[in-house]
Amino acid sequence: MSGKATEVSLIGLTGLPEVRAGDDLGTLIVEAVSSLGLAFRPGDVLVVTQKVVSKAEGRVVSLRDVAASPLAQSWAALLAKDPRLIELILREARRIVRMDRRVLLAETQHGFICANAGVDRSNLPDQEIAALLPLDPDASAKAIRERILAFCQTEVAVLISDTFGRPWREGLTNVAIGVSGLLPLRDYSNTGDDFGRLLTATIIAVADELAAAAELVMGKTKRIPAVLIRGYEYATGEGRASMLLRPPEQDLFR
Amino acid sequence: MSGKATEVSLIGLTGLPEVRAGDDLGTLIVEAVSSLGLAFRPGDVLVVTQKVVSKAEGRVVSLRDVAASPLAQSWAALLAKDPRLIELILREARRIVRMDRRVLLAETQHGFICANAGVDRSNLPDQEIAALLPLDPDASAKAIRERILAFCQTEVAVLISDTFGRPWREGLTNVAIGVSGLLPLRDYSNTGDDFGRLLTATIIAVADELAAAAELVMGKTKRIPAVLIRGYEYATGEGRASMLLRPPEQDLFR
Repeated sequence: MSGKATEVSLIGLTGLPEVRAGDDLGTLIVEAVSSLGLAFRPGDVLVVTQKVVSKAEGRVVSLRDVAASPLAQSWAALLAKDPRLIELILREARRIVRMDRRVLLAETQHGFICANAGVDRSNLPDQEIAALLPLDPDASAKAIRERILAFCQTEVAVLISDTFGRPWREGLTNVAIGVSGLLPLRDYSNTGDDFGRLLTATIIAVADELAAAAELVMGKTKRIPAVLIRGYEYATGEGRASMLLRPPEQDLFR
Repeated sequence: MSGKATEVSLIGLTGLPEVRAGDDLGTLIVEAVSSLGLAFRPGDVLVVTQKVVSKAEGRVVSLRDVAASPLAQSWAALLAKDPRLIELILREARRIVRMDRRVLLAETQHGFICANAGVDRSNLPDQEIAALLPLDPDASAKAIRERILAFCQTEVAVLISDTFGRPWREGLTNVAIGVSGLLPLRDYSNTGDDFGRLLTATIIAVADELAAAAELVMGKTKRIPAVLIRGYEYATGEGRASMLLRPPEQDLFR
């Protein structure tokens, strides 16, 4: 292509082994990048899917080991669900936001609002296994980032992504649940016109857009658990996923 | 890079002239692609920002020509806004969803729920000018797609994007408000396990993810009003933006 065009590349990282609890995910990713004949470059963004992070961190539970409380049992009957999964969801939830139509919409301990408090059974080898969200996805991102820095002497940003629903619009999109090395919001305001600023879209959730872009390459299989985004210019800094949480009192959309 | 990796490219189309009412946007885009030394390939996705579509279609209004109704005047006083802009928003809105904190959240004639019914003053040469959403963004996308087919004999998909807010999460992201040539939702379900399917994220709004990815290249300037996405495999078909609207009775998130 022409050198005049602005280009961003989304490169899927295949070749990671099946990840197990205790694996050093950062090292596995560094090896996968190398075995693809690639090398990290300063300014790259690495997006890693939550599922593989949860596996590496042992945030995977066998339902056989879960005893459902009476509350979980009664809700499970209402929702036509497995009581042990309801039990896990209740444990992961800080608050139930809605409970209807066979779905539990919950706020997680991190403050994310998502279906089933992030508990999920997809892409797991055994249907009796459920994955929970990482305890601290920012720390998960930071650990991978530091591994890349140590092995490759290269500063990159790392996002942990998950697939969330949203109101009003059909379908789910990938969002960032863990952030390290970039600022997840970008303020495009360049005018003192207060009216203009309020009317127009000025603060962009770039971390969520990066996660969404990565999903296009990941698809919904476990074959591509991480995507390298190259050519996107971002603001470095101590970003956190909590910056993407809108305080209820400022949330007109709720 | 290695041929083994899966790669998607986001290529910003610079070089479009300032677009005016009556311009043939499809032709301008074909010329911009050519002047960058590029050529459309079958399976490309072209994402075009709403603002440039609205300009080409004359969906731009001078506030000097807008007479605010008494209702618009009284709301404008409450919201500390220009009454003529409130008048435009009320004309564009099918329904006011929320009205608070100096923002009007409205449902447009198309069924989109967004701030100010999509009326916006950013990236316009004159602060007395406001842009409205295209009347039929699917038709706008189709017209561009047909121009590309006619000039280049190449089948691509075209999305019209805009930047919307969302509940619970800070910042805005690009979504698709017009669709032609692809199916905007992708169903990853591959299991008969009803519980698993309900628990997990299986229907992905790929059109919104493509629009979000394009925003990473567009930024919030008018310098890059369109982005070519190359290497993404999608399901072709008669997609419409209305497929991305969740019926209220199925919307647990509202």
